Amino acid sequence: MHELGVVYRNIARADRQAADGLASLGSATVHEAMGRVGLLQPYIRPIQRGVQVSGTAVTVLLHPGDNWMMHVAAEQIQPGDIVVAAITAECTDGYFGDLLATSFQARGARALVIDAGVRDVKTLNEMAFPVWSKCISSKGCIKETLGSVNIPVVCAGMLVNPGDVIVADDDGVVCVPKAIAGETLNAARAREANEGAKREKLASGVLGLDMYSMREPLAKKGLKYID
Amino acid sequence: MHELGVVYRNIARADRQAADGLASLGSATVHEAMGRVGLLQPYIRPIQRGVQVSGTAVTVLLHPGDNWMMHVAAEQIQPGDIVVAAITAECTDGYFGDLLATSFQARGARALVIDAGVRDVKTLNEMAFPVWSKCISSKGCIKETLGSVNIPVVCAGMLVNPGDVIVADDDGVVCVPKAIAGETLNAARAREANEGAKREKLASGVLGLDMYSMREPLAKKGLKYID
Amino acid sequence: MHELGVVYRNIARADRQAADGLASLGSATVHEAMGRVGLLQPYIRPIQRGVQVSGTAVTVLLHPGDNWMMHVAAEQIQPGDIVVAAITAECTDGYFGDLLATSFQARGARALVIDAGVRDVKTLNEMAFPVWSKCISSKGCIKETLGSVNIPVVCAGMLVNPGDVIVADDDGVVCVPKAIAGETLNAARAREANEGAKREKLASGVLGLDMYSMREPLAKKGLKYID
Amino acid sequence: MHELGVVYRNIARADRQAADGLASLGSATVHEAMGRVGLLQPYIRPIQRGVQVSGTAVTVLLHPGDNWMMHVAAEQIQPGDIVVAAITAECTDGYFGDLLATSFQARGARALVIDAGVRDVKTLNEMAFPVWSKCISSKGCIKETLGSVNIPVVCAGMLVNPGDVIVADDDGVVCVPKAIAGETLNAARAREANEGAKREKLASGVLGLDMYSMREPLAKKGLKYID
Amino acid sequence: MHELGVVYRNIARADRQAADGLASLGSATVHEAMGRVGLLQPYIRPIQRGVQVSGTAVTVLLHPGDNWMMHVAAEQIQPGDIVVAAITAECTDGYFGDLLATSFQARGARALVIDAGVRDVKTLNEMAFPVWSKCISSKGCIKETLGSVNIPVVCAGMLVNPGDVIVADDDGVVCVPKAIAGETLNAARAREANEGAKREKLASGVLGLDMYSMREPLAKKGLKYID
Amino acid sequence: MHELGVVYRNIARADRQAADGLASLGSATVHEAMGRVGLLQPYIRPIQRGVQVSGTAVTVLLHPGDNWMMHVAAEQIQPGDIVVAAITAECTDGYFGDLLATSFQARGARALVIDAGVRDVKTLNEMAFPVWSKCISSKGCIKETLGSVNIPVVCAGMLVNPGDVIVADDDGVVCVPKAIAGETLNAARAREANEGAKREKLASGVLGLDMYSMREPLAKKGLKYID
Repeated sequence: MHELGVVYRNIARADRQAADGLASLGSATVHEAMGRVGLLQPYIRPIQRGVQVSGTAVTVLLHPGDNWMMHVAAEQIQPGDIVVAAITAECTDGYFGDLLATSFQARGARALVIDAGVRDVKTLNEMAFPVWSKCISSKGCIKETLGSVNIPVVCAGMLVNPGDVIVADDDGVVCVPKAIAGETLNAARAREANEGAKREKLASGVLGLDMYSMREPLAKKGLKYID
Repeated sequence: MHELGVVYRNIARADRQAADGLASLGSATVHEAMGRVGLLQPYIRPIQRGVQVSGTAVTVLLHPGDNWMMHVAAEQIQPGDIVVAAITAECTDGYFGDLLATSFQARGARALVIDAGVRDVKTLNEMAFPVWSKCISSKGCIKETLGSVNIPVVCAGMLVNPGDVIVADDDGVVCVPKAIAGETLNAARAREANEGAKREKLASGVLGLDMYSMREPLAKKGLKYID
Repeated sequence: MHELGVVYRNIARADRQAADGLASLGSATVHEAMGRVGLLQPYIRPIQRGVQVSGTAVTVLLHPGDNWMMHVAAEQIQPGDIVVAAITAECTDGYFGDLLATSFQARGARALVIDAGVRDVKTLNEMAFPVWSKCISSKGCIKETLGSVNIPVVCAGMLVNPGDVIVADDDGVVCVPKAIAGETLNAARAREANEGAKREKLASGVLGLDMYSMREPLAKKGLKYID
Repeated sequence: MHELGVVYRNIARADRQAADGLASLGSATVHEAMGRVGLLQPYIRPIQRGVQVSGTAVTVLLHPGDNWMMHVAAEQIQPGDIVVAAITAECTDGYFGDLLATSFQARGARALVIDAGVRDVKTLNEMAFPVWSKCISSKGCIKETLGSVNIPVVCAGMLVNPGDVIVADDDGVVCVPKAIAGETLNAARAREANEGAKREKLASGVLGLDMYSMREPLAKKGLKYID
Repeated sequence: MHELGVVYRNIARADRQAADGLASLGSATVHEAMGRVGLLQPYIRPIQRGVQVSGTAVTVLLHPGDNWMMHVAAEQIQPGDIVVAAITAECTDGYFGDLLATSFQARGARALVIDAGVRDVKTLNEMAFPVWSKCISSKGCIKETLGSVNIPVVCAGMLVNPGDVIVADDDGVVCVPKAIAGETLNAARAREANEGAKREKLASGVLGLDMYSMREPLAKKGLKYID
Repeated sequence: MHELGVVYRNIARADRQAADGLASLGSATVHEAMGRVGLLQPYIRPIQRGVQVSGTAVTVLLHPGDNWMMHVAAEQIQPGDIVVAAITAECTDGYFGDLLATSFQARGARALVIDAGVRDVKTLNEMAFPVWSKCISSKGCIKETLGSVNIPVVCAGMLVNPGDVIVADDDGVVCVPKAIAGETLNAARAREANEGAKREKLASGVLGLDMYSMREPLAKKGLKYID
């Protein structure tokens, strides 16, 4: 972890169908399907509202205030990838703007997830290039120090390996290890399948207390009702 | 305070007319009318912009990472209520999503105010169920531990008693104790009544210095003008 | 610095053409043109999205929870100014709402930048009076203590002298000292001039690695590619 | 709550024996004895290490940057009291220093708990006047605005009523409602009684897994051991 | 990563001599020797000052507010281990106190590093059981949910694999992957070897500018001296 | 402000007697004597407890993660100086350790105040070189980018000009502009002169309410006592 100055060119990407299929399920359902794990910390927020996307991770490790490796990462992008950028120490600088976004988009990247700041957000919106970041900052970067591309990184508290599936929407970002992408897709679909029926019941006034048979376990735990 | 494992079924709610009337006045005017008190801390932010709402508080106390009592709270909701959720320790998990929102809405709840995270925010927007929260997080909850419903709670630094009036808008959230809901409505309306005249004067170029007769007290305090 | 109880009436403002011309270039390009300095900290965020503005600074120093000097500042505003408000200690209170905005707008102010909170944000949006602030809060202020107007202030970590140029947009806020406003405008325009060509190249798939001739310096630093 | 401009002179204090007896049990044991509730948020930290104290609360509500009511509170102190200071909005100013500490100590106060800053900490150490605070700051306060003394306050997220018992040590601060001070003392003593035996067992190498009979419930939940 | 409900009993631990030898070099020298990587975020702070320790990691993944797996981890401790505890979401609760410390110490653990809170710190000091944590909190935990022991975890932003070497002191905590423990020890010793000579030179008044031959590169970058 | 790549060699330092005399008065008294201004934000904390120091500022502006200019600053230190280090963006890295401290001490520096992290704190304690910093971090820095020495900087929210007086103790750090160092010393001494008498009075049980004649103004503001 945190090997510096290397670029892995041939990474194993998660199964494409699974990687693509997870987008519509959303980060909340997917993390539940994995057993309530895999989420990046919630300070990572979308620049644009209403976007739901998934793809395979190209990872990049950068130093504080230095975005040189973003250009190195661009070359490793394949259509369907999402770039996941981690920093070796806390930093709020703007590592990414409209020019890099143009390049990433031209290479086929679907989104950027970055544990730091970005800028040119107005143009990013117009370009419809989706970004999840820690903050927004005009502060530019230098190009002096080597990081790495496609090594395992920790982004916002979560380990992301190159080729893992990233699912991101308004609720947050989740990383699905490539080895379990397929089974996670199935589990997530199963979870979602009976949500419609539940929603209808609840909308008609049925209580979760009854629908989920919670009254007995609550009473056993000692819940008291007082009039 | 913080009695655990109890649900109070019969709570005294603030006068309905006062509870309903405060919405249009907004949190800033209402807290001024109470003598500049009653506000929840400003880290509580709306999920949706432009919503202005008021209602009577149904309170719920939850444990970190555990949203079981949300379902217990749902049964205690009456039309016109706003659910106020407090946690016994700091937590950013997503306690509330589209299914609970469907249930709350079916029971007549007008909004949720929660000192933690929520999820499914895209659907919450589509459902037009307004939420004020500390953050947004995909992280789901377990259902293991008893909290309480309709006990006094501290939410985002403010004491909220069941039945108090909650007023929430883009500026924040204020709690009006039920005993003073009526007089607060009157005081808030009085405050607002002469705002229109003031705004017109200021728009025409009259200075607050003159409109509020501030020049003399400022001079007395020793304010010096230097050319 | 932080002289209290004084109002400077005659301040030298930056060259008007430079002050007006910087708006369209944006905070990111302008700070790069100055050598990557001049930015306020990124916790200062716009209330409205998509606004891009520049103007000359009228500064005001206030005490925690006290907005009296805002009214004193209003009188010093000239058309084309942006008010920059600093506080002597950290504070999240709402120093500014629709009435002050009406007054500022009537005097010709283009925007407010404040290292504290504001309120009435719904009305501020409707009035199209742009604000960059630390937070939003309904909490009102008292009018008891003298601060100063048009002294040098530190706002969100950056020194702002009265008459300096403020450039603010979705990416953040930058302060351009009035003595270098003209040369900064030229440098920023030069920077922007060849951005279009670069964007086209990148959009066509050319890599930054090649466009910026980075391959050699990266190799010299020891970057290794692994297949 | 948050009634302004009033001083309650005659408050019911918790039973003295219970209020005094809780000190030696410590904040962790006491909050467990109450059912894991009653704790102030953990950002409240002691100025001095190694102090363990309990006493009856005299409460004071102050405005940001204004410590006038501290002098009003001093008169209401009786021997055995602990002053609990809350602020109507977030503030880091230094509300309390060696002069106020001298006065509080002369009146018989045992400690101060404050949701803001204090100063003169070197002298506070020399005087052995214990303080739990949010931060340390040289910043002094003005004396302009009325707050209240001996009303219910929310301090660091916890409701404190005048006369409640405050227990504070290196681990934090807990508030015990006066009505349950006696029973809490008994419950806390019971908890502590068998800690010695447990500690001896664990020190001899017995595992908590066995001492608390956890192996079966863990297996039931599905815990798997892999060699 | 984040596999739940499993305990790995047989983990490969780093070479004992390397694991033990790194303590005296300290976290700063060790992370430099690895190429300036491997550090946990600096919000992890020691409970005790002046302690310097190293050992092999036993990892544990816990849920917010739930310390059940701490007891499961205790059984996996071997003499010379340091327990590294990660939580699936942000939490400030007190997961660890004097009883668990007694058990860990009896098993031969040298320290605990935890991305959450601990309590009983006065007793931890007396026991001389060293702890690095995010915070201190009296808040106790429940025992309801399965986590895992000896899986890879992310603790304070850094990936820690079971058996890796942990080096902790007043400056922070660093994780050395077990595969490079030996070479890191050598590199760190080499770094330290010539520090004494440097210190002597600097103490005699020689400038770093000269000792490190920085004047030329600074001049090349364009540094200007102005009299 | 924030001119890059320059070192001012000849700076006007504040009157030596004033610069030396302010130490014993402490940061709280000095900032009061200046009219309650001049304080750095309270997140700047001392590494060592109980130290009280003053001196003339040598300023240095650094980039995130780059401490090259520290060596340039060392040459500009004269006996009686305190180095004040600001960073162009938020950073928690460890910019300063025992080697730099040895050099600074050899040059006659009395202390360092830095808006970032430091390391080797155990050795700094043993060397008795006092430091006030934002945090502690083992993370080392690179030496790639030019900053400046002895330009005006903003450190922790306060403008510091080279040659200004810095006063630092357990309560925080205050900057006294060199032009008013003498008068500030006199004003601070005057403030302190009658503190002894006040302390005695308060220790004897006299209330601040009476000593400061506060009862009448409080009554005028409307304070009500309720029995």
